[in-house]
Amino acid sequence: MNTIGIRTKAQDELVDITAEVRRLVRESGVQRGACLVYVPHTTAGVTINESADPDVARDILEALTKMVPRQGAYRHVEGNAASHIRASLVGSSVTIPVEGSDLALGTWQGVFFCEFDGPRSRKVHVQVWQCE
Amino acid sequence: MNTIGIRTKAQDELVDITAEVRRLVRESGVQRGACLVYVPHTTAGVTINESADPDVARDILEALTKMVPRQGAYRHVEGNAASHIRASLVGSSVTIPVEGSDLALGTWQGVFFCEFDGPRSRKVHVQVWQCE
Amino acid sequence: MNTIGIRTKAQDELVDITAEVRRLVRESGVQRGACLVYVPHTTAGVTINESADPDVARDILEALTKMVPRQGAYRHVEGNAASHIRASLVGSSVTIPVEGSDLALGTWQGVFFCEFDGPRSRKVHVQVWQCE
Repeated sequence: MNTIGIRTKAQDELVDITAEVRRLVRESGVQRGACLVYVPHTTAGVTINESADPDVARDILEALTKMVPRQGAYRHVEGNAASHIRASLVGSSVTIPVEGSDLALGTWQGVFFCEFDGPRSRKVHVQVWQCE
Repeated sequence: MNTIGIRTKAQDELVDITAEVRRLVRESGVQRGACLVYVPHTTAGVTINESADPDVARDILEALTKMVPRQGAYRHVEGNAASHIRASLVGSSVTIPVEGSDLALGTWQGVFFCEFDGPRSRKVHVQVWQCE
Repeated sequence: MNTIGIRTKAQDELVDITAEVRRLVRESGVQRGACLVYVPHTTAGVTINESADPDVARDILEALTKMVPRQGAYRHVEGNAASHIRASLVGSSVTIPVEGSDLALGTWQGVFFCEFDGPRSRKVHVQVWQCE
């Protein structure tokens, strides 16, 4: 298992980590298999979406903010209940097939770390396994 | 890795792909392990839900349409920002245990390709691995 | 594959199953790999979030109830359309890296079975595989 370090810069932010994940897959030596990208935080997540137009990531963040507003009748007293809820909507991992020692991403797909309670130092675990 | 081709017929549509995924699991020769169903598109996803009553799939689509309306104050200029957002809510992959060379689905579960920007020609990747 | 039995006590409930999943990972003998936690039901799901403060789980449930209300113009006649929709939002599985024969969870993370149509007897499948 390898770990990527991320320094987020805003309270809510989507960070494209595709290049780092690709590098770890290449270095793993796995030719054909799958890659797990795992976020060990409870106010952040990971998603796959379009990386060509950065407006897509902004639209995703704004939609999540509208669906789960920061202020509300939450019980959790730390003020970041919305961050926890958004993390569960987006999910804490993605799994991607590996072919030819590379992620089998679609043409427009990128892997995004989703910060919902930044700015902070964050970690992402990457595990790669071989299929026979 | 195997790839299923899908021809969707509507802008928003859930397509039951359980039989095709089951066939690929059987053909993989894997007895016990797991199966990754991966969508390489950014305006489509995949989910597991009830396949007995087709109204469940329709309710899921309508709920997503209500939560993320097609028209809105989006930045992405291609007019399909909502499709991207729904894809991230549903997710681009599902992983299912394999037992006895078959998907270990629950009685009512089916695997659904989620079209959010059709009609189009789409692909779904299926990767199966063995557990010792 | 191992299966955990759960007896839920409310219509909507998040049940912390971290200890049971951890035990199964330890017993699997897998040192380094990944663990799939899979829910074979269509009105329940599984998510990873904070286990220290139980208010976080309650906030997640209330947010889902607000986003997908139990009563509405649904087509599915069994009265639990909202349960199915919430299941697809949260997802039916989580995959977690395994290191040192243990789940590589973050400090605050726990694994929660998400009941959306209880109380009921439920099952959760746990599959663990080794990475070379």
